[in-house]
Amino acid sequence: MAPVTVFGSAVFANAARVLVCLEEVGIEYEVVEVDYMAKEHKGPEHLSRNPFGQIPALQDGDVMLFESRAISKYVLRKYGKASNVDLLREDSAEEAALVDVWTEVEAHHYFPAIAPIVYECVVFPARLGMQPNQKVVDESLEKLGKVLEIYEARLSKSKYLAGDFFSFADLTHFPYTYYFMKTTHASLLDKFPHVKAWWEDLMSRPSTKKHGAGMFLEP
Amino acid sequence: MAPVTVFGSAVFANAARVLVCLEEVGIEYEVVEVDYMAKEHKGPEHLSRNPFGQIPALQDGDVMLFESRAISKYVLRKYGKASNVDLLREDSAEEAALVDVWTEVEAHHYFPAIAPIVYECVVFPARLGMQPNQKVVDESLEKLGKVLEIYEARLSKSKYLAGDFFSFADLTHFPYTYYFMKTTHASLLDKFPHVKAWWEDLMSRPSTKKHGAGMFLEP
Ligand SMILES: N[C@@H](CCC(=O)N[C@@H](CS)C(=O)NCC(=O)O)C(=O)O
Ligand SMILES: N[C@@H](CCC(=O)N[C@@H](CS)C(=O)NCC(=O)O)C(=O)O
Repeated sequence: MAPVTVFGSAVFANAARVLVCLEEVGIEYEVVEVDYMAKEHKGPEHLSRNPFGQIPALQDGDVMLFESRAISKYVLRKYGKASNVDLLREDSAEEAALVDVWTEVEAHHYFPAIAPIVYECVVFPARLGMQPNQKVVDESLEKLGKVLEIYEARLSKSKYLAGDFFSFADLTHFPYTYYFMKTTHASLLDKFPHVKAWWEDLMSRPSTKKHGAGMFLEP
Repeated sequence: MAPVTVFGSAVFANAARVLVCLEEVGIEYEVVEVDYMAKEHKGPEHLSRNPFGQIPALQDGDVMLFESRAISKYVLRKYGKASNVDLLREDSAEEAALVDVWTEVEAHHYFPAIAPIVYECVVFPARLGMQPNQKVVDESLEKLGKVLEIYEARLSKSKYLAGDFFSFADLTHFPYTYYFMKTTHASLLDKFPHVKAWWEDLMSRPSTKKHGAGMFLEP
């Protein structure tokens, strides 16, 4: 039996965040599907894993965790060292802090701008047969453009977000950006050459290649 | 000179989050006011501290950080050990993960529910002379009630959010809850006895007593 079980497959962006971390540290894991259309995530079994009824959750022996960014850090902290993969940099208070800063930036600035575009252009059409709400998309594109200006400035000073080392701060951007890049709005990144190069670098990793392949949502 | 400088005083909820952490670890720090009404946070000096133009930022020697939850962790990680204050529990992968889980819950569930009430009932009336938008307040109160049901269940099983130890996961709830408890909606907590007791415990700490006194926003 795999030591670690993830509840939710890569098609769920927040599960994909966890799955690429598991891939980076190179341990075995099992993925258990949660049937979203049947509302299994709101049923008693999944609620016992995550009282908020959301995907993903992770079980590791007696430990049950939820919230994808917390799970990801657990995986990296617990299993990274043994594989010589250090994506949190906690041996240096300063580097760890910069990883945290840009991880928070993803959660509080990047995600709120990009997620509505992904929902309107990818998730709702595929799951609910809906057409994108153009007003929501346009407003979010404008917000995202402003965020990307700041990323462009940052990434023209250091190769990665937290510094000249690849970290969880970069990896946490993978799932929503991956879906965004499947939309007709992907060309937005052409305006930000350092961001574009950073994204291509991120997509050249075996972890993102593997799980990107499982992220397939089409009408 | 104090080793650490915080840009933004406790009246800003996100600065208060950082200030209580500094108080917990017991190091010296200096607070530099940022004039919000004069939009100093959008001026070049503050933008060089935080490209998103938000309060707070923190300087520690050559290190400049922003995003209050990231700054807080840095303070606790760097200065906690020396003072025997361990609010992140990073020596145990499991405990650290539970601290992260409930820190993420604050950011993704608790804050989105409580913040609009604080803005409508405390911040906007004080800063802009506005009346609360009752629809926003009512919807947020309903959301907050649902979140607090989950907190009540959690806190009836363990004394604190991450387990039977006080941690950053608890402390991060201080600033917005403190303002919420100044509103006429504070009685909502009476329905959740374990949450109420947890809040009173949090408010009995010297760190929250000290900075609560600086959180004063009245019309
Ligand atoms: N902050 C959570 C968000 C999880 C989330 O929104 N998951 C989606 C699937 S990708 C879900 O379960 N949505 C159903 C719901 O929120 O009720 C995390 O990062 O894990
Ligand atoms: N996620 C940020 C939020 C910071 C924030 O919203 N700060 C407020 C003051 S408490 C601010 O500067 N608002 C002005 C703005 O967002 O432009 C953090 O936790 O530090």
